[in-house]
Order: sequence, then C-alpha cells, then structure tokens
Amino acid sequence: MAVYNFNAGPAVLPKSVMLKAQEEFVDYRGCGYGIIEESHRAKAFDEIIQAAEANFRSLLNISDDYAVLFLQGGASLQFAMVPMNLAIPGKKIGVCDTGEWSHKAMKEMKILGNEIDLIYNGEPCKFSKIEGIKDWKIDQNLAYVHICSNNTIYGSEYPYFPETGNVPLVADMSSDFMARPFDINKFGLVFAGAQKNIGPSGTVVVIIRKDLAARCPATVPTMLRYTTHIDKGSLFNTPSTFGIYMIRLVTDWLIANGGLAAMQKKNEEKAAKLYAAIDACPFYTGTVDPASRSMMNVTFRIKGGDEELEAKFVKEAKEAGLIGIKGHRAVGGLRASIYNAMPLEGVEALVAFMNNFAKVNG
Amino acid sequence: MAVYNFNAGPAVLPKSVMLKAQEEFVDYRGCGYGIIEESHRAKAFDEIIQAAEANFRSLLNISDDYAVLFLQGGASLQFAMVPMNLAIPGKKIGVCDTGEWSHKAMKEMKILGNEIDLIYNGEPCKFSKIEGIKDWKIDQNLAYVHICSNNTIYGSEYPYFPETGNVPLVADMSSDFMARPFDINKFGLVFAGAQKNIGPSGTVVVIIRKDLAARCPATVPTMLRYTTHIDKGSLFNTPSTFGIYMIRLVTDWLIANGGLAAMQKKNEEKAAKLYAAIDACPFYTGTVDPASRSMMNVTFRIKGGDEELEAKFVKEAKEAGLIGIKGHRAVGGLRASIYNAMPLEGVEALVAFMNNFAKVNG
Repeated sequence: MAVYNFNAGPAVLPKSVMLKAQEEFVDYRGCGYGIIEESHRAKAFDEIIQAAEANFRSLLNISDDYAVLFLQGGASLQFAMVPMNLAIPGKKIGVCDTGEWSHKAMKEMKILGNEIDLIYNGEPCKFSKIEGIKDWKIDQNLAYVHICSNNTIYGSEYPYFPETGNVPLVADMSSDFMARPFDINKFGLVFAGAQKNIGPSGTVVVIIRKDLAARCPATVPTMLRYTTHIDKGSLFNTPSTFGIYMIRLVTDWLIANGGLAAMQKKNEEKAAKLYAAIDACPFYTGTVDPASRSMMNVTFRIKGGDEELEAKFVKEAKEAGLIGIKGHRAVGGLRASIYNAMPLEGVEALVAFMNNFAKVNG
Repeated sequence: MAVYNFNAGPAVLPKSVMLKAQEEFVDYRGCGYGIIEESHRAKAFDEIIQAAEANFRSLLNISDDYAVLFLQGGASLQFAMVPMNLAIPGKKIGVCDTGEWSHKAMKEMKILGNEIDLIYNGEPCKFSKIEGIKDWKIDQNLAYVHICSNNTIYGSEYPYFPETGNVPLVADMSSDFMARPFDINKFGLVFAGAQKNIGPSGTVVVIIRKDLAARCPATVPTMLRYTTHIDKGSLFNTPSTFGIYMIRLVTDWLIANGGLAAMQKKNEEKAAKLYAAIDACPFYTGTVDPASRSMMNVTFRIKGGDEELEAKFVKEAKEAGLIGIKGHRAVGGLRASIYNAMPLEGVEALVAFMNNFAKVNG
C-alpha cells in the first residue's frame, strides 16, 4: 500500500532526497563516515552550507544586500529575535493578525515591552479570510510590520503581500516558503522553519536585509543578534549540520525540478484538485474564504463540524495510508498539508478516499 | 582502509547506531516514511522523546526534582539562557575560569548586566591545569556558580567537582557529558551540546532542578524560559526531531553497553594508551598537567610546538585514515578527541601512527 504523509510539519520530503541521504548516511561520498559525524569546520560541510546558501540565492534571486542564515530555535525563537533586533524605542510594531501564529509573535513583542499597531484584525471573521490587503493603512512611523504569509492552523494564505512603503516588512513564511516565487526585495526580513517545504525540523532559515541588522541594541545576547550570524556565515557556533545537509539536498531538488515557478504550478494543481473535491460535495465544507485559501494547508469540515464523523474519517484515512489528516488541536476539523514534496498521486488518492467516504457516510 | 574520526564535534557516532538509522531512514519501523518526516505530535515521535528522557534518567539516576530537556541553540545559547533564568538582581555570579568556553559564558553574563565573582583564574597557567578545586572559596551569597567540566580546546577536565554549599552549581558539560558517571544532585543545572558524546549537532540537553526554573523574571521571552520547556516536555515548539531520535539510539547503545561506569572504564583505557604514547616519547609533549588531563580531548604538541611538523602530522594522519587531529584554531597544535563512540582500535591505530611518525621525523 502506498503511504502519503499529510502532516503539517515535520512533513514529507522528496523521495529522491530521502533515498540519497540514506544511501550516503554512513559513508558520505567515500570519506568513511557519515556527514552527520563531520565537523562543521571541515571542508565537506563548508561545501554543503555554501551550496545551500547559493541555492536559496539562485531560487529567490537574492542580492548581496541580504544575508541568508541557518539558525536554530525555529520560528518560535524568531518571534522574540525579530523584535529584540528590529524594534526601535518609541516606535510601534505593526501587526496584521491572521491567526494563532500572529498571536504568538505579538505575545513576544509585548513581553519585550513593545506597543503594537494592529493593522488588520482577522478575529471578527474567525480568521477565515485575509481581505482588503491593498487598502491596509501603514503608518510610516512604525519600526516594522509583521505578517504571517500562510496560516498553517487556519488554512489561509496571503494571495499577495501588503505594500509597506519605507517600513520594513517582516514575514513569518514558515509554511509556504519556497512554494511559490516572491520578490525578496519587498521584505526586510523573512523567516521560515525548515520542516514544511525545505527540510527537517531544527533549522530556521532567515533572510535579512543586512542594514537592518545594525539596529540591534548592545544589551542583546550574542546568539540572539543577527549580526553575529551574518559575520560568521551561520557558523558562530555549531549549527544543525545534518539539517543543513538535508536542506541542501531539498534545494538541489527544487532547482532540478524547475525552481519555484514550476513548484507553484504543481502546488496550484494539487490544491485545485483538493478544493474542487471539497466544493463539489456538500458533505464537506472548506473553512476558508476561497480568495484566501492556502495552497499548502487545506482545511475542511464534515457536515459543518461533525466531530464523530471527522474522527472516523481520520481513522479510516490512516488505514488507507493517508496519514496526518487531523486538524490542529486549536481548531479541530480536518487538514491536509500538501507541501512541495507531496506528489500529485497523494492528492488524487485523498480525493478518491474523500469521495468514497462521503458516499458511504453521507 | 579503516577510517577513524577524531573530530572534536560533531563527532563519531556508534557504528551500530549509524547502521540502524540508515536501515530505517526512509521507512521507520514499517510506517511507510522516515522518522525525519514524522510529526513531533505523532505517537511514534512521542515514544522516542519519552524513551530518550527515560534513558537519561536511568543512566544518571535523575529524580523527579529535575527536568530533562531537549532544546535548540547549543551550549552557546545556554550561555545566555542560564543567566537570563537564574541570575538574581544584586547578587554576583561565580565563575571558575578554565578557558575559552568559560570566557564565552562570562561574556553573556556581562552583556546581561551581571557582576562576576572569579572563583578560579586559569589564565596565569595558560589553562594547563585546574588545581586546588577542594580549596576554592564559594561565597554563599552568589546567584550560582558556573563551571565548564571539560575544556575541549585546552584539553583539561575537572578530576572532581567543587562543593558549592547552598549555591546552585551550573556545569557546561558539553564535551564530557555521559562519558563518566556523576552525581546530578550536586548540580542545579547541567547542559551539554549533543554533538560530542550523545548525538548529532542541533540539540542541547539541559538537566535542571525544577525549583530553580521559577527564578526567571517575566521579561524573558517565552522560548528562552526553562519553565516553557519544562511545562511542555520539550514540545512547546517543534524540536530537532531527527536529532532526538539519534540521541535515543545513542542512549539505548550506552545502556546496552553497560552504562556510564562501563563507558568510563573504556574511556580511561583509551586515554591512558594515548597519554602513555605521548609521555613515552620526547618528540611529543602533552599540553596539560597530568592531574587535569581530559579523557575526551587529548591535546599535544610536536617538539614543543613545531608548526611545520604538526601540519605534516595532520596531513599524513589524514592519508592514513586518522581524521580531525588538528588542534583548535585558538591554540594550534594537535588534538585527538576520543569520545564514547571512538573504538579502542582507533586509539591503537593513532598510537601506531604516532610512534612511526616520531621515528621518521624525530
């Protein structure tokens, strides 16, 4: 039986990447031991981290004005590191609230003593849409503006990004990073936990406009300053070397498969198939307004929220080799995460299962 | 040719662990995909992190008064996290300075505004010994005392630990953690980057007396508070799941091989053989006083510091399959790291090479 892993992250990785990593696991390219055992100062690892960075620069067309960093602590640590480095005393931080991950970011801003300017409030619509983006008013006196580009829990995604003028735009792109092209020059800082589209958990990729890093006050510990990691090329201390190795393989795979434009086309096709199955059958309802639907995390309910049937769906899907369809515990329901590495066949298998399940239980 | 990896970290892992991880890399115990792709909330990963914690508790006889945490950011982030959580306004922090890693810890204490009470200063002897430990005076009004149990760069190690009375003792044990038994009840907090004795880089193990975690002031960001991770069993956010999986396998291996007492016996035997080879031949000199020598990182020079011959040694050793013998860039010279997973045969091969090299070049 084919098994498809729809987990929201850590998540499915490209099969060819998994096989290559397995093949060279105990003997990396003839050196006699595994890359996981190699020094982060060795030539072999240097080649890997340089190649990984070069892959990001090529895939996203990143200029030298920006640094590409491989850090630890996940997006959750970035929620603190961003305001520690980029807040400006006396200035507010702008936030567009599109759900749980926006709240976590705001919590850390407040702990650190910052005031927030709420640019968009998704609460009234229960985060079922992200609307009016082009009309959002951005006070030009803000320290920066924070957005979460794709909301893994609610299943919504920015169809396009706000224009913030001279105010740096910071994006938590954890769950849709590298799933579609975007213009990095519109952003001051982008961060993404690797465990969705680009590798295993334990590494967060940060792309930062270098001049912004200089804002950091002297009272911030060394490891929490972007300048530390920019100056040392992410090797101030020992990074998650195996994670970066995997990220290098995944980004090699992205390039070999046509880059981000090709990835977007494939992702749109997968998402369209899945949403079409939901919309075609009144047994299922999507939880997000069509204009704000995520290409990555497809959230839906059965009979408007029949928890018993949903539990049955999750159980039987698992038995059919369709893993990780349960919605996030904060919202319930069902969720299929269809990141870059999910093949079209996985989505087709899920759609066939859904149609059959609706027929039997509808 | 047999290859032996003497890197200081990331470092050699047990061969049987590497083979097992390779075998189940793309299909973890029949689930159809790799553990690196599994959700951190899934039952399979829960079993792993629980087993890893149980292994530490069993190997070190850790009571429920202590939490065992798997965090990110390495020992370098702990240099900041420890004072952020355990410093007390108006009280000094005691530090025993045994080298580079003590300095890095002190730097972060100072950035965070703490005053330091220097209990021991290894500078005058150039960190070639750690002496008089039992006579060190510990002011009972200190917030805590910080030590680095093994100095990877200088090659020194505490033969026994200081008695600090009611003042919590904090140890950076990165490079000798799990290499010998110790009484955890003497410590308030112990941390260790995994990449020496217990797994790959990207995870730092923290063992903390739970009552101390309550000291943390409200201004510390969520991810940097020990209480956050204690409350959530290291799953507040996504940890480095593959790293924790490897740590579980390594600690399984430790238990299957007789635990820490057996490990110490094996490590003493390896270190004794290597130091004997150094001491038997005037061509080589150990850099550390015999009473303070590390069982883990054996540092030595050729002809008291002949850099040309040392470079030749590193090059020819590498050609002979003996990897990573170069000393740390901060001190130069030669260093062989012989952690738990280095087999006796590796040390014997190095000793044979050393004897031959001395004969040819002496």
